[in-house]
Amino acid sequence: MTDWKNPPKLFIPGPVHVLPEVLEQFARPTLGHRGKEYSQLHGETVEMLKKIIFTEQSVFLSTSSASGVWEGSIRNCVAMDETVLCTMCGAFSDKYADVARSCGRKAEELKVEWGQAITADMIDAKLSAGNYAAVTMVYNETSTGLANPVYEISKMLKEEHPDVLVFVDAVSAMVGLPLHFDELGWDVVFASVQKAFALPPGLAVFAVSDRAMEKSKSVPDRGYYFDFLQFAKAAAKNQTPTTPAIPHIMALNYQCARLLEEGMENVWARHKKMAEFVREWAKKNFDLFAPEEYASDTLTAVKNTRGINVAEVINAIQQKHNTIFGNGYGKLKEQTFRIAHMGDITVDDLKELLAWIDEEIA
Amino acid sequence: MTDWKNPPKLFIPGPVHVLPEVLEQFARPTLGHRGKEYSQLHGETVEMLKKIIFTEQSVFLSTSSASGVWEGSIRNCVAMDETVLCTMCGAFSDKYADVARSCGRKAEELKVEWGQAITADMIDAKLSAGNYAAVTMVYNETSTGLANPVYEISKMLKEEHPDVLVFVDAVSAMVGLPLHFDELGWDVVFASVQKAFALPPGLAVFAVSDRAMEKSKSVPDRGYYFDFLQFAKAAAKNQTPTTPAIPHIMALNYQCARLLEEGMENVWARHKKMAEFVREWAKKNFDLFAPEEYASDTLTAVKNTRGINVAEVINAIQQKHNTIFGNGYGKLKEQTFRIAHMGDITVDDLKELLAWIDEEIA
Repeated sequence: MTDWKNPPKLFIPGPVHVLPEVLEQFARPTLGHRGKEYSQLHGETVEMLKKIIFTEQSVFLSTSSASGVWEGSIRNCVAMDETVLCTMCGAFSDKYADVARSCGRKAEELKVEWGQAITADMIDAKLSAGNYAAVTMVYNETSTGLANPVYEISKMLKEEHPDVLVFVDAVSAMVGLPLHFDELGWDVVFASVQKAFALPPGLAVFAVSDRAMEKSKSVPDRGYYFDFLQFAKAAAKNQTPTTPAIPHIMALNYQCARLLEEGMENVWARHKKMAEFVREWAKKNFDLFAPEEYASDTLTAVKNTRGINVAEVINAIQQKHNTIFGNGYGKLKEQTFRIAHMGDITVDDLKELLAWIDEEIA
Repeated sequence: MTDWKNPPKLFIPGPVHVLPEVLEQFARPTLGHRGKEYSQLHGETVEMLKKIIFTEQSVFLSTSSASGVWEGSIRNCVAMDETVLCTMCGAFSDKYADVARSCGRKAEELKVEWGQAITADMIDAKLSAGNYAAVTMVYNETSTGLANPVYEISKMLKEEHPDVLVFVDAVSAMVGLPLHFDELGWDVVFASVQKAFALPPGLAVFAVSDRAMEKSKSVPDRGYYFDFLQFAKAAAKNQTPTTPAIPHIMALNYQCARLLEEGMENVWARHKKMAEFVREWAKKNFDLFAPEEYASDTLTAVKNTRGINVAEVINAIQQKHNTIFGNGYGKLKEQTFRIAHMGDITVDDLKELLAWIDEEIA
């Protein structure tokens, strides 16, 4: 019987499992968002986030899902008569192009099959042949379990197309995968907290480069809720432009402190170790959906080579163990299934889950 | 010393004090937002909200502050070549006009002094003399402690200007003041949960009439994050278009159940009783800022007739009792101060606070 008060343990690729001690942070007494207590919380949290994504530029907190920042990046940094190149390799990178169009901008598509990577050469060819204000990328495609080679791409962009702004959806990448915002030369990056930050959903974190902020000053009709200039104005007082999701920020503060205590190199290594463990299992029993060289370290999309009934296996494990993993996304349903290995999930958690799956498919 | 982990008890007009048992709802294990557990939570919560605001039309949950729905109402229901009449009587109703303009729409102003009410006659005169697609109102001006006579206004609008869409900011009104959405003939109404719902901030609740939903189908470039058609599509599955603030929705579910158990007439009467208590004190010691016939039942703006140093009194009470009330908003700072009496605040809480203020100003 469905009971939201007794939900399954989550191995879907977001929201992911949240530790009880983290959930407790949400129950702290709330604050006035224009008071000094909030500014203290905000300032502390943003300072830690800057260390987590290696930036000295602006970091903001948005009370929205990360998809709100899809819209913000377009509305603030692309003028109505400019064109954005949208690289598309799965459900979420595909949607970025829809968002650009829903904001009335021209979006040109650079599209590969779901499960394939976007490469530096592909982007270079497109940008060289046209006139683009910006390029959108997804670091880690949650729908296909694929991490694009963003370090190589970014190196090429800095060398060959330094004037093109770079917007990166790092929703299921940030924290779990290396991300040096300033060094990469990105202009906007964003993530939701229900992925590798391992919090319940309801808040997005984003960074904006100084040059993107400068550009936005010249773009009219930026809208209200995602206006980067208003974010910057409020950030100068360690505030948000509109009333923020305070419980999430308290819990984010807690998680950031834990991450920095562990050290980001160690955090990334821990994710890689979990990923390798799941990939070994997947290759032994099925196959990987994405080419192994691009396989994500935060989730694995398993190719259902044995034709198991994925929905039935998920259901059975929910019945027996009150635990779920993810079916394939959209058109990949049943052809693939997805296992998250990010945030506060551990190798021991994964061992238990994979043993349960083994039992069902034996 | 400022310590966000030990914040003052809040009598500012939002966020307001939250009961420990309500805070605990935020610490529940989280859910997958595309799973049946979330749909159950969402469906239950929306059904209760419909009873709370007396509607059989669409009720949606937005992971944003209510100001996001300012933008949504404009982008979805006002075409680029249409004009909206913005009634303005304080900081928040003033801002609604800014938002309309930041979305590239033409906004005509109907402006009275802060602390004065907008009346049916004023709106009738303006609408009769022009061609307007919509009118914006704030039910309860949090900056001035004034409740506009929205029932009279709405009766006039239905009779005289039935084709004009009506958008109502009920941020500090919903739950605390009577609100019969369908009977009033409104098209969009919205509130944040950190006011009379008595939750920490991070979620907005909004309702949209069937005709406004129909209108939005003809409006292009509605944007992405606040696209009402996407909200409707997701609501058919008891979901949200983008990942929702699940902890807030769990706690909102809890609060809605309590409100319906009490009965909305009783909830409104309880707010009125608290308001009368604070108004008596204010009239005895100072004066009301808004004309008494329009004085709000969710917060009182007190006119600082004695020239006390408001900031100093607030500081002293924070030092001694770890409790704060609100200074005046913006240009009304020091000229007024504000005391919230909504949500789970009680007359006993207010007695304690007012006694502390008495002590400071003696």
